[in-house]
Amino acid sequence: MTKLKLGMVGGGQGAFIGGVHRIASRLDGRFDLVAGAFASQAARAHASAAELGVEPDRSYADYREMAKAEAARSDGIDAVSIVTPNHLHGPIAAAFLSQNISVICDKPMTATLAQAKSLQSVAQSSSAHFFLTHNYTGYPLIRQAREMVQNGALGEIRIIEANYLQDWLSTAPDRENKQAAWRTDPSQAGGGAVGDIGTHAYNLACFVSGLRATKLNATLQSHVEGRAVDDDARVHLQFEGGSHGHIWASQVAIGNENNLTLAIYGTLGSIKWAQENPNILWYTKLNQPPQMITRGGAGATEAANTVTRIPGGHPEGYLEAFATLYREAADVITGQEPTKNSIGINEGVDGVRFVDACQRSSSNGSDWVTLTD
Amino acid sequence: MTKLKLGMVGGGQGAFIGGVHRIASRLDGRFDLVAGAFASQAARAHASAAELGVEPDRSYADYREMAKAEAARSDGIDAVSIVTPNHLHGPIAAAFLSQNISVICDKPMTATLAQAKSLQSVAQSSSAHFFLTHNYTGYPLIRQAREMVQNGALGEIRIIEANYLQDWLSTAPDRENKQAAWRTDPSQAGGGAVGDIGTHAYNLACFVSGLRATKLNATLQSHVEGRAVDDDARVHLQFEGGSHGHIWASQVAIGNENNLTLAIYGTLGSIKWAQENPNILWYTKLNQPPQMITRGGAGATEAANTVTRIPGGHPEGYLEAFATLYREAADVITGQEPTKNSIGINEGVDGVRFVDACQRSSSNGSDWVTLTD
Amino acid sequence: MTKLKLGMVGGGQGAFIGGVHRIASRLDGRFDLVAGAFASQAARAHASAAELGVEPDRSYADYREMAKAEAARSDGIDAVSIVTPNHLHGPIAAAFLSQNISVICDKPMTATLAQAKSLQSVAQSSSAHFFLTHNYTGYPLIRQAREMVQNGALGEIRIIEANYLQDWLSTAPDRENKQAAWRTDPSQAGGGAVGDIGTHAYNLACFVSGLRATKLNATLQSHVEGRAVDDDARVHLQFEGGSHGHIWASQVAIGNENNLTLAIYGTLGSIKWAQENPNILWYTKLNQPPQMITRGGAGATEAANTVTRIPGGHPEGYLEAFATLYREAADVITGQEPTKNSIGINEGVDGVRFVDACQRSSSNGSDWVTLTD
Amino acid sequence: MTKLKLGMVGGGQGAFIGGVHRIASRLDGRFDLVAGAFASQAARAHASAAELGVEPDRSYADYREMAKAEAARSDGIDAVSIVTPNHLHGPIAAAFLSQNISVICDKPMTATLAQAKSLQSVAQSSSAHFFLTHNYTGYPLIRQAREMVQNGALGEIRIIEANYLQDWLSTAPDRENKQAAWRTDPSQAGGGAVGDIGTHAYNLACFVSGLRATKLNATLQSHVEGRAVDDDARVHLQFEGGSHGHIWASQVAIGNENNLTLAIYGTLGSIKWAQENPNILWYTKLNQPPQMITRGGAGATEAANTVTRIPGGHPEGYLEAFATLYREAADVITGQEPTKNSIGINEGVDGVRFVDACQRSSSNGSDWVTLTD
Repeated sequence: MTKLKLGMVGGGQGAFIGGVHRIASRLDGRFDLVAGAFASQAARAHASAAELGVEPDRSYADYREMAKAEAARSDGIDAVSIVTPNHLHGPIAAAFLSQNISVICDKPMTATLAQAKSLQSVAQSSSAHFFLTHNYTGYPLIRQAREMVQNGALGEIRIIEANYLQDWLSTAPDRENKQAAWRTDPSQAGGGAVGDIGTHAYNLACFVSGLRATKLNATLQSHVEGRAVDDDARVHLQFEGGSHGHIWASQVAIGNENNLTLAIYGTLGSIKWAQENPNILWYTKLNQPPQMITRGGAGATEAANTVTRIPGGHPEGYLEAFATLYREAADVITGQEPTKNSIGINEGVDGVRFVDACQRSSSNGSDWVTLTD
Repeated sequence: MTKLKLGMVGGGQGAFIGGVHRIASRLDGRFDLVAGAFASQAARAHASAAELGVEPDRSYADYREMAKAEAARSDGIDAVSIVTPNHLHGPIAAAFLSQNISVICDKPMTATLAQAKSLQSVAQSSSAHFFLTHNYTGYPLIRQAREMVQNGALGEIRIIEANYLQDWLSTAPDRENKQAAWRTDPSQAGGGAVGDIGTHAYNLACFVSGLRATKLNATLQSHVEGRAVDDDARVHLQFEGGSHGHIWASQVAIGNENNLTLAIYGTLGSIKWAQENPNILWYTKLNQPPQMITRGGAGATEAANTVTRIPGGHPEGYLEAFATLYREAADVITGQEPTKNSIGINEGVDGVRFVDACQRSSSNGSDWVTLTD
Repeated sequence: MTKLKLGMVGGGQGAFIGGVHRIASRLDGRFDLVAGAFASQAARAHASAAELGVEPDRSYADYREMAKAEAARSDGIDAVSIVTPNHLHGPIAAAFLSQNISVICDKPMTATLAQAKSLQSVAQSSSAHFFLTHNYTGYPLIRQAREMVQNGALGEIRIIEANYLQDWLSTAPDRENKQAAWRTDPSQAGGGAVGDIGTHAYNLACFVSGLRATKLNATLQSHVEGRAVDDDARVHLQFEGGSHGHIWASQVAIGNENNLTLAIYGTLGSIKWAQENPNILWYTKLNQPPQMITRGGAGATEAANTVTRIPGGHPEGYLEAFATLYREAADVITGQEPTKNSIGINEGVDGVRFVDACQRSSSNGSDWVTLTD
Repeated sequence: MTKLKLGMVGGGQGAFIGGVHRIASRLDGRFDLVAGAFASQAARAHASAAELGVEPDRSYADYREMAKAEAARSDGIDAVSIVTPNHLHGPIAAAFLSQNISVICDKPMTATLAQAKSLQSVAQSSSAHFFLTHNYTGYPLIRQAREMVQNGALGEIRIIEANYLQDWLSTAPDRENKQAAWRTDPSQAGGGAVGDIGTHAYNLACFVSGLRATKLNATLQSHVEGRAVDDDARVHLQFEGGSHGHIWASQVAIGNENNLTLAIYGTLGSIKWAQENPNILWYTKLNQPPQMITRGGAGATEAANTVTRIPGGHPEGYLEAFATLYREAADVITGQEPTKNSIGINEGVDGVRFVDACQRSSSNGSDWVTLTD
């Protein structure tokens, strides 16, 4: 199997998510990282390239230059990973998509809804593919949960609950913390907790339930003095078909690391899942004892097993789920049909619309607002 | 130590909570059940009395008669337990309080806010005591959590989360199910999930945090066809001092039995507690690993230890917590000062006001409503 | 239902297990404590009696006198609870059984095998009943587990694992700690961890599996300087029918309170249970996901439900399980057939024989020894 | 950073552990798989090579030929992974070590103690390195536990408990199951549960405690008709310095997947860890509440953090721990000093000696046997 050639924008020294994308791209052996604009400062960009084994002639300080140069090479990159602050996702993705280079972009898709819609137009006129790394959708038991909903195992869905609790922003972060710096700058991030992790929760709720929200009311709050974005978001949702839901995203909930949980209750059963122990899916049928389904175990189904690498009881984690998105992107880029599990431009717009709606509702007395196209 | 003489109204054959009150009253040996109006039908009342070892001459079919007769006896009851459907709590409690017989009343205090305020007046002019059995406040580690908040262990409180999930009303209940019958009849219950279990969650949130809500918005829903009351309630709350909170009460969440949980997040730390495994309290200080405090264990404090009966690792449960309320009621009735932990008439009004506010908000587009006196 | 009259030997001020027995006897309203020899010192005995509401004329300092006096009264006690150090169980039980007063005795039955056999003879010639409070057998899900084994749900049993870990003797206890003092005195206790908690584990293993051990090898150790009894016991067991097992009892395992666990593996399935969260029973059928059966829940069976007081999700604990033994004793004393779940004189001999065999094996190079009658 | 060139012996189509080694070798980008003898049948070997992107001229059917040919190439492999059945590890490792090609070998090191000692001699006279993939030692919190023991956090060690429970051999496996076939063939495996997973438990116990066993007694059993090796092993151990321990390895414990747990109890504290949720380490200090230390969290120390890739709450799993061993092997092969955490030839001999001693004890009435060099 030939490896695909991968570029990266962002992810230089001191960054976090870039390293995650690189491991994810390597794990299944489908990509080689061969080019990058790892930073906008040339010196830092080239130092990072050297560290990462990228040849100097494919180390760029400007993503526009990189898109053009790589498109012009016969051995140019097949795809680019975008791992910059949110407000840059749109223009960078557009630059590569315009060159028909596929994009694997971190979430949220953009910092504003206008940017999202603009990117959607670009994507629709490109022959390349756009992938959004809502990585939690790569967990095997999330795939199974989605399949169970589709198969009617839960009956009609009544309630969807998705919470994402962290505590790393419980106090004002050090100035040196680059992760915190841009994430708490509204112009770069677009939103606070609601954008950074609320979009994950919303995406996961939609992915597993197969439903989109039609309206919501929200209360966004900021608990740390001087913070310019929300660090705690409460959202009530109405979904298509009458089910309702709730999302709570917080970055000041001391004692929580990446405590993303999903529960879906239907007329016939329920599922519960927690990201911090993702190899377990609780499934309860009406009037029966809860079953503990394990990844790789007796109750795991095809949807889970096809994205499982090792036997039950040997935990797979965050990087494996992330790698599954890279593997599936590789499949699509090499010509396979996208799986129904692919997260792309439309889900990206949905996520930013969710943020936008939460902000509108919250600034308007938590009134109900509509999520319209 | 002389035992107090206890009467009971309600709790005849086929009832549930009456049996719980009787065990709770016996557990610490402070009460003898000597009188009762166990049912409004004379035959059922007397059959229940016989089963329960209550002498025929102290078995009544009418609580008014009972209140008078017992007040007139030299060996009359010291207190009465009220374990009827909610709409009867008010008049029954008033009948006994008017005779200066102390009342131990199941929750919610009444079915309507008007009833609650009326009872409050009666109670204020009685020399007897009124106790409301928000029994979860009797758990030792809930007492400790409350003490920790008071001592500043959590710093300033930011977020209060109290959920109470059940599944026993996921489908329309059998007609024979007496518990379900009156609980889903608005005229008897006053509310659905919001009243039956939402009031427990709200009481617990206030009890531990020491705060009362100032306003809320709510969405009440009914998921089962033909059901006349809510079976799922979502409530956003603003508390005194600016902290905010959320209560979710559901009776259609398949896979949950009595899944009452409380989490409080402050500037310096957090606590988490779950009623189904109540001998554990999670405590996380800012930037430190979570600690698992156990009832009777190394981290348990005086507030917990004074209401603890057996060593750590030997679980105490629901009945012990309930019995603590009876023991403390006995202390007060025999002349001790009420502990600061006593739940009485004011908390009862607060609970019914909470239900009333949720109903008002929900029927008015989930608008914010004020919880005023 | 008339209450039975109960006496108690031991359990005076400063004791632990006496209080547990008293609560257990009260919880279901079947016994009134009316007499006692709460201590061997007259002053302490009478002070305890006064505190406990026992009339002065039925407060004794000598159990022999008590047995005679109570047997002579027309309103004499129906049963006596024995809650003294182990070496006194035998003579006290014999004194009451000889007067045909039923005995409810704490475990282990005696301090030596000779005492156990002697008591067995006395019991066999008495018309009264002997009950041994291996209280963990009163947990509803333990009853269910036993029933499941009997019904063949696990197939043929292969492996039985019962561990009981504590940490309260990790260091030399204070001299004032009466619990620790007699429990670490071989002449009073008969054994250390192996007797105090190992017998519980062994009893539970036999109770649920329906099997008795035929031989064992053991390693007993004492980890604290100056300690005269074992504080850590490892035992391999061969059971009737070829299944084998393991018991680990430790009182120096820091971080464990009363961590008694039982797992039984058969050819068709397994069960797992933990005393510290006793309202859950894990059941796994071959090639199926584990099921979490809850007390009072959808998977609970008749065997559990008949000893269940409150609905699922409202935890029952140690005292309720203990109370079930008292309730069942009351049933037998008032003329009902003993249930098949009754723990009596034969199980008592078995337990002491287990301790004796462990001590013989351990002092003989951990050689296999036989458990013969 | 230049990548190392890796070869592999075994791991062709249908194998399991080969795939794990390949992912582990790729995850940190330190190795490229360039050669292999993936099967002993030429056709299967070459088909596997093609699938894995290995050039035909570096696909071998004979490992001896491969060792010679690769040693002769200027671009020959730097290291070889051995992922065959156990009885082949010795000769294959010897063939490569003799050519001064480093070896990364799956465990147990060999099928017999004689093979182990023979390989030890070869290794000692080779300039290349030998790494044994006791992969559980790569988990960050296992590293931290080891460091805590070394730092005296637990005081003097009293008790070491390591259990490894599986259920995949609860019944006779299908004939087509290659994993099961060789693992239950004594001539290929050398032992059953005791070798396949008992050695992991023993290695982990030694790795974390820093102690080696001096003697043991064991009971090996085979629960499935016709099975030629043990599927359940119970081992008592005496360690250097007087602490003692216990290992239980079972492959017939229904409801367990890869339930490897470690607990170490000392005079000052204890640690508990479970492989199926490896991002948590329980740490209890004497007379303090248990602390839940998380990988990447507030209580994680340098020893854990240096082998951690992503933040706390984003689970790392089995493959990451395995990859850490490959990364550390790469460091050593490229000239760094071996870390004190390296598992090599001596630990390999220890593991096989452990199996040998268990077999000797078990076949001799569970007598104590010495583990001598």
